[in-house]
Amino acid sequence: MNKNDFAKRPPLGWNSYDYYDTAVTEEQVKANADYMAANLKEYGWEYVVVDIQWYAENAATRRSEFQYIPFDKLTMDEYGRLQPAVNRFPSAKNGSGFKPLADYVHSLGLKFGIHIMRGIPRIAAHQHMPIKDCDTTANEIALPWPVCEWNPDMYGVNPRKKGAQEYYDSLMELYASWGVDYIKVDDICNTKGTNQYAAEGEIELIHKAIIKCGRPIVLSLSPGPALIEKSWHLSRYANMWRITDDFWDNWDLLKNMFDRCELWQAHVKEGCWPDCDMLPLGKIGKVFGYERDTNFTKDEQLTMMNLWGIFRSPLMLGAEMTLMDDWTVSLLTNKDLLRANQYGKNPTQIFKDKTKAAWVSVDEEDGAVNLAIFNLSDSINKITVTSEEFNICKIKDIKDFQHIKDIWSGNNISETVKAADYKINVELSPHASVFYRLT
Amino acid sequence: MNKNDFAKRPPLGWNSYDYYDTAVTEEQVKANADYMAANLKEYGWEYVVVDIQWYAENAATRRSEFQYIPFDKLTMDEYGRLQPAVNRFPSAKNGSGFKPLADYVHSLGLKFGIHIMRGIPRIAAHQHMPIKDCDTTANEIALPWPVCEWNPDMYGVNPRKKGAQEYYDSLMELYASWGVDYIKVDDICNTKGTNQYAAEGEIELIHKAIIKCGRPIVLSLSPGPALIEKSWHLSRYANMWRITDDFWDNWDLLKNMFDRCELWQAHVKEGCWPDCDMLPLGKIGKVFGYERDTNFTKDEQLTMMNLWGIFRSPLMLGAEMTLMDDWTVSLLTNKDLLRANQYGKNPTQIFKDKTKAAWVSVDEEDGAVNLAIFNLSDSINKITVTSEEFNICKIKDIKDFQHIKDIWSGNNISETVKAADYKINVELSPHASVFYRLT
Amino acid sequence: MNKNDFAKRPPLGWNSYDYYDTAVTEEQVKANADYMAANLKEYGWEYVVVDIQWYAENAATRRSEFQYIPFDKLTMDEYGRLQPAVNRFPSAKNGSGFKPLADYVHSLGLKFGIHIMRGIPRIAAHQHMPIKDCDTTANEIALPWPVCEWNPDMYGVNPRKKGAQEYYDSLMELYASWGVDYIKVDDICNTKGTNQYAAEGEIELIHKAIIKCGRPIVLSLSPGPALIEKSWHLSRYANMWRITDDFWDNWDLLKNMFDRCELWQAHVKEGCWPDCDMLPLGKIGKVFGYERDTNFTKDEQLTMMNLWGIFRSPLMLGAEMTLMDDWTVSLLTNKDLLRANQYGKNPTQIFKDKTKAAWVSVDEEDGAVNLAIFNLSDSINKITVTSEEFNICKIKDIKDFQHIKDIWSGNNISETVKAADYKINVELSPHASVFYRLT
Amino acid sequence: MNKNDFAKRPPLGWNSYDYYDTAVTEEQVKANADYMAANLKEYGWEYVVVDIQWYAENAATRRSEFQYIPFDKLTMDEYGRLQPAVNRFPSAKNGSGFKPLADYVHSLGLKFGIHIMRGIPRIAAHQHMPIKDCDTTANEIALPWPVCEWNPDMYGVNPRKKGAQEYYDSLMELYASWGVDYIKVDDICNTKGTNQYAAEGEIELIHKAIIKCGRPIVLSLSPGPALIEKSWHLSRYANMWRITDDFWDNWDLLKNMFDRCELWQAHVKEGCWPDCDMLPLGKIGKVFGYERDTNFTKDEQLTMMNLWGIFRSPLMLGAEMTLMDDWTVSLLTNKDLLRANQYGKNPTQIFKDKTKAAWVSVDEEDGAVNLAIFNLSDSINKITVTSEEFNICKIKDIKDFQHIKDIWSGNNISETVKAADYKINVELSPHASVFYRLT
Repeated sequence: MNKNDFAKRPPLGWNSYDYYDTAVTEEQVKANADYMAANLKEYGWEYVVVDIQWYAENAATRRSEFQYIPFDKLTMDEYGRLQPAVNRFPSAKNGSGFKPLADYVHSLGLKFGIHIMRGIPRIAAHQHMPIKDCDTTANEIALPWPVCEWNPDMYGVNPRKKGAQEYYDSLMELYASWGVDYIKVDDICNTKGTNQYAAEGEIELIHKAIIKCGRPIVLSLSPGPALIEKSWHLSRYANMWRITDDFWDNWDLLKNMFDRCELWQAHVKEGCWPDCDMLPLGKIGKVFGYERDTNFTKDEQLTMMNLWGIFRSPLMLGAEMTLMDDWTVSLLTNKDLLRANQYGKNPTQIFKDKTKAAWVSVDEEDGAVNLAIFNLSDSINKITVTSEEFNICKIKDIKDFQHIKDIWSGNNISETVKAADYKINVELSPHASVFYRLT
Repeated sequence: MNKNDFAKRPPLGWNSYDYYDTAVTEEQVKANADYMAANLKEYGWEYVVVDIQWYAENAATRRSEFQYIPFDKLTMDEYGRLQPAVNRFPSAKNGSGFKPLADYVHSLGLKFGIHIMRGIPRIAAHQHMPIKDCDTTANEIALPWPVCEWNPDMYGVNPRKKGAQEYYDSLMELYASWGVDYIKVDDICNTKGTNQYAAEGEIELIHKAIIKCGRPIVLSLSPGPALIEKSWHLSRYANMWRITDDFWDNWDLLKNMFDRCELWQAHVKEGCWPDCDMLPLGKIGKVFGYERDTNFTKDEQLTMMNLWGIFRSPLMLGAEMTLMDDWTVSLLTNKDLLRANQYGKNPTQIFKDKTKAAWVSVDEEDGAVNLAIFNLSDSINKITVTSEEFNICKIKDIKDFQHIKDIWSGNNISETVKAADYKINVELSPHASVFYRLT
Repeated sequence: MNKNDFAKRPPLGWNSYDYYDTAVTEEQVKANADYMAANLKEYGWEYVVVDIQWYAENAATRRSEFQYIPFDKLTMDEYGRLQPAVNRFPSAKNGSGFKPLADYVHSLGLKFGIHIMRGIPRIAAHQHMPIKDCDTTANEIALPWPVCEWNPDMYGVNPRKKGAQEYYDSLMELYASWGVDYIKVDDICNTKGTNQYAAEGEIELIHKAIIKCGRPIVLSLSPGPALIEKSWHLSRYANMWRITDDFWDNWDLLKNMFDRCELWQAHVKEGCWPDCDMLPLGKIGKVFGYERDTNFTKDEQLTMMNLWGIFRSPLMLGAEMTLMDDWTVSLLTNKDLLRANQYGKNPTQIFKDKTKAAWVSVDEEDGAVNLAIFNLSDSINKITVTSEEFNICKIKDIKDFQHIKDIWSGNNISETVKAADYKINVELSPHASVFYRLT
Repeated sequence: MNKNDFAKRPPLGWNSYDYYDTAVTEEQVKANADYMAANLKEYGWEYVVVDIQWYAENAATRRSEFQYIPFDKLTMDEYGRLQPAVNRFPSAKNGSGFKPLADYVHSLGLKFGIHIMRGIPRIAAHQHMPIKDCDTTANEIALPWPVCEWNPDMYGVNPRKKGAQEYYDSLMELYASWGVDYIKVDDICNTKGTNQYAAEGEIELIHKAIIKCGRPIVLSLSPGPALIEKSWHLSRYANMWRITDDFWDNWDLLKNMFDRCELWQAHVKEGCWPDCDMLPLGKIGKVFGYERDTNFTKDEQLTMMNLWGIFRSPLMLGAEMTLMDDWTVSLLTNKDLLRANQYGKNPTQIFKDKTKAAWVSVDEEDGAVNLAIFNLSDSINKITVTSEEFNICKIKDIKDFQHIKDIWSGNNISETVKAADYKINVELSPHASVFYRLT
């Protein structure tokens, strides 16, 4: 098994976090899966992902004090493996875990994913719980420090201890038995603190456990920012890794993503997807106590879609799908954008400064060129891209283009463009962008 | 009560750590107390301090793997307050705590001290144990992160939570009932990590709890290095604070102490003692698995005594006292050195570079001048101190001295020294020093 | 000579920078000196200081591009010593330097100060100019790197090179011959870059040169923030040192000064004055291209005066004095405030958090207690100071006070305050403060 | 012109620095070029590079004090462009520059390179010298700070100033007129200080100036370590960039290179060569005052060649070639190693820990696999590489190999290796390595 085959193209899906925080229920997951199957599946959207603390019975019950209640009860089996809280996921009763829910999602022709925290429950360590298929106990593999700085549930696992691989094997064996297709492992990509890649060994353990379990589970690592100096390691063991800290509907964060994409542009490859994080579109924020329509303007939403699209970020939708309006749906169903995201090879930044950026990629099958131009400033901005700038990006064999299509309007903006003196001028509103497909 | 009255002069005593690591027993503490009473008390030595993990039944039983066994059993009362392990301190049976041992030490005319880790036992938080005299439970005041980087026993306490002051009050009430005279609180002076003074609030809680308990318990803070930018806060709430990380019998550490003393020289005041850490003299290292006579040469031992002495560091002996030879005893019983340590006002560095240093202080009662000169280099070194250099240190009213006494040999090296052209020349072996008393 | 005698109390004066930037002229300096002599001298104000680039003929002529024109002409004598630009200081013609201007200031009963940059002119090094009374040339003592990050005129001097002391001796000899009473040396207290105290050796050279020159020239070091870990060194060699970077009329900077004063409170001593920087009151900013009345509200101006006053910062006025209104003058002529600044011993912060602060000091002669209470928040704030809090600051022997005088209104707010249950309540507007004198 | 065509494969050559420091002469350069033409050209070695300060008449004349004499005379034309010092390069007389020497090197069938420091001579800025073909003067484009921390000759150039591009154009025009084929630009790849990539804009200026000059000059950037987060920028504008600081004949530096190669492994591409620095083989160090045979053992020399070889570092020889012994020559003339260096695609680290490492690459033409195994420890080490480990590196289609050739001994160590259970065991002396070619 080659892990790069598990995600040959950037994964497309939905994640419960942006709307439901720690508190999503089985019913809500199913409603979103139903929506996806009916409306988005045909465009390639397929993953339905249950995010953090599905094992916490009391999740979000003291939300004004804590996002994660410290030292609270976690649902767990006799091997210290977390299980869905039955009050939230009734089908998990009698030790069924997520199998019934995964089966349901599969029945819709979709794939099922879950979030986990790196490590082993703290209470499992303090109670010396056994590791499955191993004569070791949790206290022997748990690392008393450092601990995750933002979630109090787990201790890290010491990869040099006997029992460490066995523990992760027991997890992946369980998840495979449930039918999990995708795991988002948290507190692992950037562990904060002095050594931000302290979980390097655990990444390897999890990768090996996935290969052993025999199911092609996509491995997604959070949170970011991933360390560029570990790009080789991430490429070897994971399918996706977050290149920023949590992304929300805030222009500063969106603007900053241009810096992150610049940094990671040489590392976008089959099975290896630097991840710009979820798309905070439509209705979001409910359980956080701040339900809202996305704070992004329409221009900013398009700018986000254009950047994530051309950069080939995985696209994981944050909206409560059943509440989406037509505009939001239109952002998710543009075939040219999705084509660029799935087939646009070698995404390359042409230029970037404080006021503008431009990116290019080439369709790996039909050779069409994708070109996105962005106004990063707070004023109207006239921006020009020239063929000389294309050359600097080493797009080989720039030919004469017959058509330049604005993918969002569908209009052709030009009949013929000569490669020798190629020049495209655009005038963009603040934070706006265009995405052209040149054929 | 004014905490500065609890330690008007630098405390002198013995600490179990350097020889016994985590594993000292009641019998061993008593033997050392007996020795101190018989041999050192008359020179001013008085504190007998039981260091870390007296509450751990299994302390040091897996020493090749761990100094502190993670997630292991700790002896504790129903309020999450740690108690002496009865297998090691038999008199603590039936909930007597350290009272019988403290009574014994007091009966010898000495004072009794203990070490504690900042915070509340982790297992108390996970088990939601009650706080004494308060309707709160341990999980409500425990901080899930950050955690101590080197000892796995405790969680920090959140000073802004109801129950936090009550928890520390319950500790000091207990220690006062035992008859504790001195507490060395660890993981508090420099908490490592991003914010090295993260325990600022807990220092205030402990100070207030001491004042409330009504017993003048000396408050000693570890580990170092203390932050010079918090000198004002330390001076306000504590009696002693470590100015380096753990000190051992290693020349590089000793040489580095000159940098630390330089840094802290303006902060040596009544009730406020920057602390150079224990004196690793005589036999040390047994339970660490490396029993030895101190690695310091005799010259280095004198250099340490001279620096600690003139700087007015607290003097806490690390040696197993019952195994000391006459040489080691002689270091601890020099009346001129102890006089300088207890009465030498305004210790001031005259100069320091990579090869040499000199310090001066003035006896607050008789006006004698203490002068220590150090060879920090690895070669023989001729060093001169002039009256001009004295002036730069603002020693007011330098008079003509009649006698310069070498305090270690007892010899007078000169009859008269004229203030106007004061000049002392010494030739010192590598790492050696002299200590003169000028009258 | 003891440098602490040069500034036994915090210096009070005027500095040309806040209004005139790099471009003040002789005429303007004289006008301000005249004003001071006529109106402020009786309150203790005495220093008149010419700030940066008096040697630059073209200073401020390309102000929109540069504050300091790089590689431009500097007026200099044959020994690489900078001289006043004659087009700006006509009395400096024929090599008279600042002597005529200093004589004028002295004739008014005031003192004269100048600003210099640490080091030797870059062009002197490139042209191999001779050092006075020494057979070395400038290139031999100049340090090619690092260079000052904000002013391009000078290279640093290597204190280990022959000629380095001689160069600074030649400067101080010159300044003494001019009659300079005060030098503000810049690029020396915090040199920025990797080693922020890179000029440690040059501070010693300048101190020694002052002692040698025989004139008690006050040594003021800029810019800040000074390094707290070098407090001992600064106290030994300088009279004043800046504890922040440049201070201007901005509330955030003023609020931040409370952090800096907290940090430095233990280091305020005779001859050793941590310096909060100039008072940007009245008319300021002209040559910067932004002439204005201070942006501070009246409450903020009082808060600044109260903090600088009780902390015993040197008070150096930034206003163009001839344009001051009565309000501004009233801030500079309050006898109780100036008394606290000049005689208030051991200024101590009682408490400080994000919304409030309080400070106390005791008059060294009459034992009156100065108490300042500050509202740091943006809302109205009720603040209480209790006798218990006084105790924590170790104000010995708090007695029963008969009078509490509000020094700005002159009113007595209370007849008698019992020490045992001392409690003062104030209600303060945003950014406002009170200053009480208790007798 | 595409800069990647200027160095389609890693450049091979000689550089004067390791032996001659700042002081090489024309005669010495010619002697080395003669040697290369006669003995190494046939193996692919072709560049002859004159390293730093060829413009300094007095270079190395005060070597015990300075490597670079500060503020000394530099040979320069009327446009502030440095010229070869005629006392060292006689053929440069009458303004001929390096043209005669380049012509000579070209006549041998080799290529000619020079070293330059980024920026413009300091003295040109202070003297306001004109920029060629531009109405600006040097002081207008020179940056007064920061300055290079180790060489005092130059100021940086402000890329936003008019005249900046023109200045670099004038340099490249001159170098093209001389016939320069390769420039090693120093103080540009890592500029040290706060912003280590402060010369980003100057890299672009130089790249554009090369393209404009019309000569395919290879652009090599020093010193390292290059910043991995700027890999995309380096790849776009340069041909080679140093991945460490200066490399010398020291095992710690060699061992550290394994970390650096790990970091940069994904960035080795046509026209883009992460550079391990010069090979300190044979006789080196003369003008540094420490002439010696390389301190590396033979095993270490082979380890260096194997790592540089498989990683595809440029190979720039540091030895004085005319003094090389047969052993040294043998290291430079192994056809299999040079083949791997020039044709081995996708060099990939298989594993690395503190005691061992292994690397693999695949010949882009004949599909042979290059495998290098390294003992990084100080003891004899048995190391195994398995086919599973090959798989992790994504070497596609591992076939059954017929031959495993030890390229240094020439021996075949095995007849057939089955891909399915591929396993190679080696036992290596301390710091030793093997290099196998599998076909």
